[in-house]
Amino acid sequence: MSTIEELARRVKDSSIRLAAVGTEAKNKALARIASSLIERKKEIIQANEEDLRRSKLENLPMPLLERLSFGAEAIADAADGINDLIKLEDPAGKTLLATELDDGLELYKVTCPIGVIGVIFESRPDALVQIATLCLKSGNGVLLKGGSEAMETNRILAEIIREAATKSGMPEHWAALLETRSDVNDMLKMDDYIDLIIPRGSNDFVRYIMDNSRIAVLGHADGICHCYVDENADLDMAVDIVTDSKTQYVAVCNAAETLLVHEKIAPRFLPELRKQLEKKNVEMLGCPRTRELISIDPATDDDWKTEYLDYKLSIKVVADLDEAIDHINRFGSGHTDSIITADKQVAVRFMDYVDSGNVFWNCSTRFSDGFRFGFGAEVGISTGKIHARGPVGLEGLVIYKYKLLGNGHIVEDYASHSKTFKHRKL
Amino acid sequence: MSTIEELARRVKDSSIRLAAVGTEAKNKALARIASSLIERKKEIIQANEEDLRRSKLENLPMPLLERLSFGAEAIADAADGINDLIKLEDPAGKTLLATELDDGLELYKVTCPIGVIGVIFESRPDALVQIATLCLKSGNGVLLKGGSEAMETNRILAEIIREAATKSGMPEHWAALLETRSDVNDMLKMDDYIDLIIPRGSNDFVRYIMDNSRIAVLGHADGICHCYVDENADLDMAVDIVTDSKTQYVAVCNAAETLLVHEKIAPRFLPELRKQLEKKNVEMLGCPRTRELISIDPATDDDWKTEYLDYKLSIKVVADLDEAIDHINRFGSGHTDSIITADKQVAVRFMDYVDSGNVFWNCSTRFSDGFRFGFGAEVGISTGKIHARGPVGLEGLVIYKYKLLGNGHIVEDYASHSKTFKHRKL
Repeated sequence: MSTIEELARRVKDSSIRLAAVGTEAKNKALARIASSLIERKKEIIQANEEDLRRSKLENLPMPLLERLSFGAEAIADAADGINDLIKLEDPAGKTLLATELDDGLELYKVTCPIGVIGVIFESRPDALVQIATLCLKSGNGVLLKGGSEAMETNRILAEIIREAATKSGMPEHWAALLETRSDVNDMLKMDDYIDLIIPRGSNDFVRYIMDNSRIAVLGHADGICHCYVDENADLDMAVDIVTDSKTQYVAVCNAAETLLVHEKIAPRFLPELRKQLEKKNVEMLGCPRTRELISIDPATDDDWKTEYLDYKLSIKVVADLDEAIDHINRFGSGHTDSIITADKQVAVRFMDYVDSGNVFWNCSTRFSDGFRFGFGAEVGISTGKIHARGPVGLEGLVIYKYKLLGNGHIVEDYASHSKTFKHRKL
Repeated sequence: MSTIEELARRVKDSSIRLAAVGTEAKNKALARIASSLIERKKEIIQANEEDLRRSKLENLPMPLLERLSFGAEAIADAADGINDLIKLEDPAGKTLLATELDDGLELYKVTCPIGVIGVIFESRPDALVQIATLCLKSGNGVLLKGGSEAMETNRILAEIIREAATKSGMPEHWAALLETRSDVNDMLKMDDYIDLIIPRGSNDFVRYIMDNSRIAVLGHADGICHCYVDENADLDMAVDIVTDSKTQYVAVCNAAETLLVHEKIAPRFLPELRKQLEKKNVEMLGCPRTRELISIDPATDDDWKTEYLDYKLSIKVVADLDEAIDHINRFGSGHTDSIITADKQVAVRFMDYVDSGNVFWNCSTRFSDGFRFGFGAEVGISTGKIHARGPVGLEGLVIYKYKLLGNGHIVEDYASHSKTFKHRKL
């Protein structure tokens, strides 16, 4: 039985070899993983039923049981996802820059896999399949750590994925599952082996990961998204966008949680909005000025920093654009914020000054999503400001290296001025 | 007197406004900073002399005193550097991607400043000027923390920079100097205000910063760079490249520290190399097989992980390319490694499998440098694998945001299939 560190070291060693594997070979391995999942679905379902049975006995709450369930349909979806992933462009091996530094001395900046990705996820077994295959597509090794409730499902999924990939010629240890006995905290300390952590789970879970590791984390804890209805907004458009942002799907990070309304439009807008939101059973909480216009319960300062993930909206009337911007930058989570206005100058100022990964004009916050953005895959949504931000596609799993090709070139020739650099773009 | 946190919060607030300032206005402010440095050089020299006087009394070692010195020439150089920086392209405001998601719904991925950069540096006052102006050029706020030995110099430099920038219309608090009473550790904890830390100083200093902050760090601690002389290397070329990599300037991170030699070429190569290195007074330490070929002192395992920064080279004979690659990936620091070979296939394998920011073929390790690469400026050299790697130019100080411009678009229309995405490249 290997120790966790040995496991991690083997994944790191394999990741070096995986990084050099070509696109076609990686895609073949992905195809084999997809077909293996289908072929071996009975084993998966059996393992999942065991997890479900045990978890029920342990009184796992219903929503968690639902997330844990991984039946025939979910397996087919996972395989479809892999087949879509195969069609996407390989993010590694792209030349970002090519410069002739001097005659015969050529510099290339080429994308390459990051190395080893640590993935930590709660219940959902589909997260394991999705992230492991995203890592393979981009050439990264992956250390997977799932929740104990999905132990059997994760084990069989990891086995199927590894076996299919290995039979297709991938380095044997490119992926490894950390068994549930091991602690998440062990993984958070492995900065010698893990280059990036991707957490998938509840806000509290993600925040814990972010607060307890020196390894870079790609993700988001809260999604406190705002709509700001400017004085020059089209009323109907504003009602539609706020309603969609709040209610189209309440349980997700890009749903709006707070509405800001310019004081000049508030008396006309808020009663209209209320009609619409009441139809959807949205509970509204307002600042004192809001409550002068529509009779709803009061919002406290805590509401401005709360992600309801529910049919609930906090509302604040603001004096002007700058107050809206300040509120968003103070209470927001840097996720997605949208302005509704007919005034272009105001919209541009909003998008320049709001310090969020996604700044929208006249459209729903719900659009911030890798698939809607056309990325074909989504590694996660990042509220960080380093490496990757907003919805992150496969490009978030690569970095680059500089390759310099010479013919005996030495620096002394340039230091002594017997040669000079040309820096010609290739 | 402000507390450090208040100071940091003000810089963060100002950074939001600075992010929206145009290229021309930032360049004007940079020009004014350059001319102010020249105009007020007497004050700077006076302050620096006070630092030097005090530091001598405190018996600061000579090399540190030399680094601390900031006279008329250094001031002129700093001003020249700023004038060069003005000519560079603004890294912010570039459109990286433009997609029409559907009719009238346009997505733009646009570069923008990261936010607030924390700069921690030892003695050298020129580091303060250089990094503060790099931050201004890229639109970032900056918190500066210098060493106590340069207290007076740092204070006047920060004052000049801030005053010149403010008079040119920059937000007042975009830059702040943390006075020397405050601890570096306070800064390392300010992840609410600082988005990226750039340390400038000795290896131990940088390592300490990296090991003690959850904030992302752009930099490198060690530079353990390798040359690998393959069996098919041109002997003269190999001697020249290894000599340049080791001796062209020994005190820098991109100087070679370890030489790996293929066993088939070692008997011919090592005696030739030795002749050349002895002329430069390079001390050589070798593995047992090296010492069978040339009589030098033995290298221990510690030597493979030591950055000498001196006229000293460790040498190891390897059985093949893969042993060389494994050695580099195990003992190297991911900085710069060069292969000397006439065999293209071998070179490609080396560049694919060596996991370093800079992988070179038939040229000196000393080329890994932002200016030699043609970047015009160098923010630092990063051995990290997230965000930026290798020599980092101004682009290392920006991230991006997504701007989505619609006309009342809501997600429900797409969820209900009454509309479909087009994802047309603009």
